[in-house]
Amino acid sequence: MSDLLRRRPVATPAMIAVFDDTATIAHACAFEIALACAQAAEGLIAPDVAAAIATGVAAVRIEPAELVDEVALAGTLAIPLVARLRSALSGAAAQALHFGATSQDVADSVLMMQVRAAHHIIAEDARRVRTALKRLAIAHRATPAVGRTLLQDAMPVAFGLRLAQAAAGIADALDQLDAAVARYTIIQFGGAAGTRAGLGGHGACVARRMAEELGLMTGPPWHARRGGVAAIGACVAMLIGAFGKLARDVSLLAQNAIGEAQEPVIAGRGGSSAMAHKRNPTGCQVALSAATRAPGLVASLLAGLPQEQERGLGGWQAEGPVLAELFLLASGSAAAMAVVAEGLDVDADAVARNRDAAGMGEDMGESAAIIAELLGIGED
Amino acid sequence: MSDLLRRRPVATPAMIAVFDDTATIAHACAFEIALACAQAAEGLIAPDVAAAIATGVAAVRIEPAELVDEVALAGTLAIPLVARLRSALSGAAAQALHFGATSQDVADSVLMMQVRAAHHIIAEDARRVRTALKRLAIAHRATPAVGRTLLQDAMPVAFGLRLAQAAAGIADALDQLDAAVARYTIIQFGGAAGTRAGLGGHGACVARRMAEELGLMTGPPWHARRGGVAAIGACVAMLIGAFGKLARDVSLLAQNAIGEAQEPVIAGRGGSSAMAHKRNPTGCQVALSAATRAPGLVASLLAGLPQEQERGLGGWQAEGPVLAELFLLASGSAAAMAVVAEGLDVDADAVARNRDAAGMGEDMGESAAIIAELLGIGED
Amino acid sequence: MSDLLRRRPVATPAMIAVFDDTATIAHACAFEIALACAQAAEGLIAPDVAAAIATGVAAVRIEPAELVDEVALAGTLAIPLVARLRSALSGAAAQALHFGATSQDVADSVLMMQVRAAHHIIAEDARRVRTALKRLAIAHRATPAVGRTLLQDAMPVAFGLRLAQAAAGIADALDQLDAAVARYTIIQFGGAAGTRAGLGGHGACVARRMAEELGLMTGPPWHARRGGVAAIGACVAMLIGAFGKLARDVSLLAQNAIGEAQEPVIAGRGGSSAMAHKRNPTGCQVALSAATRAPGLVASLLAGLPQEQERGLGGWQAEGPVLAELFLLASGSAAAMAVVAEGLDVDADAVARNRDAAGMGEDMGESAAIIAELLGIGED
Amino acid sequence: MSDLLRRRPVATPAMIAVFDDTATIAHACAFEIALACAQAAEGLIAPDVAAAIATGVAAVRIEPAELVDEVALAGTLAIPLVARLRSALSGAAAQALHFGATSQDVADSVLMMQVRAAHHIIAEDARRVRTALKRLAIAHRATPAVGRTLLQDAMPVAFGLRLAQAAAGIADALDQLDAAVARYTIIQFGGAAGTRAGLGGHGACVARRMAEELGLMTGPPWHARRGGVAAIGACVAMLIGAFGKLARDVSLLAQNAIGEAQEPVIAGRGGSSAMAHKRNPTGCQVALSAATRAPGLVASLLAGLPQEQERGLGGWQAEGPVLAELFLLASGSAAAMAVVAEGLDVDADAVARNRDAAGMGEDMGESAAIIAELLGIGED
Repeated sequence: MSDLLRRRPVATPAMIAVFDDTATIAHACAFEIALACAQAAEGLIAPDVAAAIATGVAAVRIEPAELVDEVALAGTLAIPLVARLRSALSGAAAQALHFGATSQDVADSVLMMQVRAAHHIIAEDARRVRTALKRLAIAHRATPAVGRTLLQDAMPVAFGLRLAQAAAGIADALDQLDAAVARYTIIQFGGAAGTRAGLGGHGACVARRMAEELGLMTGPPWHARRGGVAAIGACVAMLIGAFGKLARDVSLLAQNAIGEAQEPVIAGRGGSSAMAHKRNPTGCQVALSAATRAPGLVASLLAGLPQEQERGLGGWQAEGPVLAELFLLASGSAAAMAVVAEGLDVDADAVARNRDAAGMGEDMGESAAIIAELLGIGED
Repeated sequence: MSDLLRRRPVATPAMIAVFDDTATIAHACAFEIALACAQAAEGLIAPDVAAAIATGVAAVRIEPAELVDEVALAGTLAIPLVARLRSALSGAAAQALHFGATSQDVADSVLMMQVRAAHHIIAEDARRVRTALKRLAIAHRATPAVGRTLLQDAMPVAFGLRLAQAAAGIADALDQLDAAVARYTIIQFGGAAGTRAGLGGHGACVARRMAEELGLMTGPPWHARRGGVAAIGACVAMLIGAFGKLARDVSLLAQNAIGEAQEPVIAGRGGSSAMAHKRNPTGCQVALSAATRAPGLVASLLAGLPQEQERGLGGWQAEGPVLAELFLLASGSAAAMAVVAEGLDVDADAVARNRDAAGMGEDMGESAAIIAELLGIGED
Repeated sequence: MSDLLRRRPVATPAMIAVFDDTATIAHACAFEIALACAQAAEGLIAPDVAAAIATGVAAVRIEPAELVDEVALAGTLAIPLVARLRSALSGAAAQALHFGATSQDVADSVLMMQVRAAHHIIAEDARRVRTALKRLAIAHRATPAVGRTLLQDAMPVAFGLRLAQAAAGIADALDQLDAAVARYTIIQFGGAAGTRAGLGGHGACVARRMAEELGLMTGPPWHARRGGVAAIGACVAMLIGAFGKLARDVSLLAQNAIGEAQEPVIAGRGGSSAMAHKRNPTGCQVALSAATRAPGLVASLLAGLPQEQERGLGGWQAEGPVLAELFLLASGSAAAMAVVAEGLDVDADAVARNRDAAGMGEDMGESAAIIAELLGIGED
Repeated sequence: MSDLLRRRPVATPAMIAVFDDTATIAHACAFEIALACAQAAEGLIAPDVAAAIATGVAAVRIEPAELVDEVALAGTLAIPLVARLRSALSGAAAQALHFGATSQDVADSVLMMQVRAAHHIIAEDARRVRTALKRLAIAHRATPAVGRTLLQDAMPVAFGLRLAQAAAGIADALDQLDAAVARYTIIQFGGAAGTRAGLGGHGACVARRMAEELGLMTGPPWHARRGGVAAIGACVAMLIGAFGKLARDVSLLAQNAIGEAQEPVIAGRGGSSAMAHKRNPTGCQVALSAATRAPGLVASLLAGLPQEQERGLGGWQAEGPVLAELFLLASGSAAAMAVVAEGLDVDADAVARNRDAAGMGEDMGESAAIIAELLGIGED
């Protein structure tokens, strides 16, 4: 029961793996181990109990399929997972497992670990796009071309200016995403009502130790304070939008009547099941499709902000799949546009021909200086 | 690489199966067979060629996993699928396969077949909810209770009135969805540029025959006219919203300080990993979570309406996963609320106690008549 | 304190007037008069009391500015308005005014009256667009042109086919809007908790009489059952999307490198503050801008569906301005595209030239038949 | 033709003034003056020409009503406004006015000036909310209360913990908004195609001088790079969501059956037109209504990101009204919740009574430490 035929065209395998069941379970197990170790370090449980938990949990092999129905019934992963893990332990270890934590602690911490991994993938592809665009923009910083506004020919611009603008938009969105991920991927550890009860005042220390172990930031519980999730999602959508801007421009340049640039030729890509001659801008299609879907997903995250009391009903449960979807879309978009940008096939003759046809001169204004500023480089 | 642990809690196995890879491939093969048979019936290809296609395609066993990477590369299912099918045929059958069709014809027709199946599932669960609510509303058509407005105690109402309102909202949304599905699940068959070229004027007849075979409506191609997809999606979201209304009310009634109704007790459901005594409104959680996510998905569908020219870039490709997601959410919501409505545990004592505490009398106004009108029944 | 400079470019004066303060107050007064007259007809109040209310309310002149701060403070129009009206009446009339009604009864009924008026305006302009497109599509039902898919030249189509598709999309969306308006513009009359208390069992009859007087449908109260509002909004957005499809296509045709069609030349429109020679597709800009904004507004309406109990907190209060905004955007879009469609300047030479350049023949497939079916006309 | 009766309940007069026609025109005139002065400082025009422009523009009195129809026709404010201003000048001043600028330069710069002013208002009210919540949270840092999760009683918490969480959410969202406003309120100055043509290489210097004069940041043109607008809008929505969280909690606490806190009593606020005894949470209603509307508006901004080429068609034109709407909603929400937070009426007896009824003890876990961390204060 998979829908990879609909999912894979919009997401990379690496990103699909970040959010798949295996990863989810692995992170949840890591959470439980980190919890036990932190409690031992704080003297709340005996070191050998923590060791037994760590060893025992690591040894359990869980097929996601076994858990699926129970998870659906319980409405949360942690309940059946912890039961399964506990049954593999005994005595004090079985008893100490998951102590002080609540299901949402696991769910949110797992999600933040996945965000960290997802961000890493996106950032890499985004930088590929930016590097390729930078190279192209510099190469064409003095190539006079038709500037177009409101979809009409307007005034001459450097052909590289539009690409530099796209590069700057992507770089800026990535900056914002970097900052949001750094700020908000915080361990969730608050227990049943977000008070860190039952830990003898060591809760904050346990949280800090867990965060270090799991590669997360530390901070007070945020069970019903969801601005961080929304912020990360909004930044991902802005990055998707920045790729969409590039895709819009490349697809307009690739129109037959304009022909100034084309996606690279790749065997098996951009064909038509009915027209063998066509060279479809399939990379742009992926990015534009993602840009069509992302805004609504952000609306979903924002709609969940007014959550109830200590831990809400329905709001935070809606976030995980939506945030995952945003990263999946971003991965496909970034990877597609990396290929497009790195292989972009610019037809300098067409650029010149169109400019002549438009009766435009070669005065590109301050295009070169603006390109330099956009790319953060010297002007020459 | 599956994410069932995140997907299954929000969708039913039956609905997941409607949109899974196996179903998608099966529908696509059915499309190709129906196309060949229709062309034979119209005399465009020989009957034995059509028969060879029907037999040959039906015999091919395709593992979705084999196709996934090619589909992602091509940006469309049809190209690698048709290649695979064609390699299993020979001669005229291989040549005639997929003739006159384009990738989007397959994608859209498959989606509409899935919509039909999905609608059937939703409708059944929605009717379960409605029947259960009707029964409860009738049983409590004369039970005076606290009416609450703006989250404050207001005036007495029949306890059944709120349930009847929820039932009417669900019934109305289902009516609209029924109508949209009936109106818009139209075969897509237009060929490369939506002109039904190369069919000797038999295109409309081929389309009509295919529609009959595949259980769809017939009509002109709608490659870039996407109002139907958006309408179906909006209707699904309105049904999700109607379930959300019920879930909101049940979860408010279930608050400990009010305690007028509870979700039924189900082993393994509604528990807490930290608090064994809790009885969480997990069914309502599913429905409220779906209601948080659906509006943004509709926005995505609506955003795709201004598609380019004969067949657009990025817009329609965004729709399939979004429409599937809406039906998945609706399935989980409907199934969860069916269980809640059928097993709703009304505490009549609490109802009376709260009314007394609020100092309210027993004059329920025309509650009974309104209930009758909402449920479409006689008043007594 | 007006923002007409931002609002007027996206909406027509007629539509702005439908939703302005003067209209809002007038409809609210009409509601109070209709309520009194209906109660008199049902024998609940004396005829002369109703007459006094009718005369008295009609005679009051209310400057919106006087009420604004009180309305903001009260959070509802009805409270200060009824107080103002009551102070102009005396005795039994003052006492009977607004009897049995709640603020939301007024707000929702007023909104539905405004929807009726708004729909009338939209429908007229949408029909203008459709008529103009039909004429053009027929005129060009046999003009071979470049068909374009995924923004690439694909196969020949009749130039009129794309216009006929746009016309059909608009006609379909208008049909759906007509149906939604007919079905859901229902009087709101339920009183404080939606039970029609205090009316001696005459509540439904009072509602029916009011509906007739105010030009609305009748039905049970729908204070917290908001599917109708969402449905109307979704239909408006689908119409906006259908105009957006046309605008997208016209703006792509108007690109200088394609030049197959242009918006009509209108003094003062489409100019540039910096480039005197430009002929911007300003009508398309209005429609595309509306199509960018509408989806999010529908998401807002859908997000409000799970409202609390008898009358919710925050949900329904969010709907009025959002629904108004949708109609405002639709009005500007419809009016702009009516002008564009009626004056569309098709360059047949460019159409032919582009086709030649693309090396395309004249076989338009079944374009003519599809056009006929889309327009609901005979084929020749 | 105003709709203040619908607008004023959701926005403050101060914020309405920020975005009204008078302010819009004043900022546009300031832009033109700053442009002339900057050009004079760079030696592009004579100082007395700039002085004549400054004096002449400042002396013109423009009634917004005069411009409205022309603006709607032109599709942009700048064209008719510049024509009007020019007619008040003569000779070189008339000629030099608006030189080097395009309509979008004016529109975007005006919008950014309005964002600066709007941010100032929001920040002030947000800080009021935060201060009041901080005071309350400290006062109740050791008041044991029922903690509630998934709308069910869960475990004891300090009554102040929930308020501290809300305060932290608001503070964090405000931080992010501060940063976005500081980063993205950049002068728009690029001329027709975003190249700063015709300025002899002084374009960047002109832009920098203008920015200083107008209180904006400087940077390269961002005509079709719209991430900044979307980021500001998303941050406003997150702040609205944070207020919504507080409003959700206060309205749940204010339920009669819980009664732990109430909005302050304010004459004319929170009444019912049908039930004199009611005390509606009207401030929360405003904030929850805003939180229902904001997510869709952000979706609209994000949907506009993939804009075409040097300056797009329809996308950026959609943003101004949407961003204004977000700030309007935020203003009403912030002002309403400032009143609620400053006057929140906590019933300590009810808090204790509910805790007793729930059979909960007084162990609040690390509530006090978490409150201290959330508020950034020492623990005692």
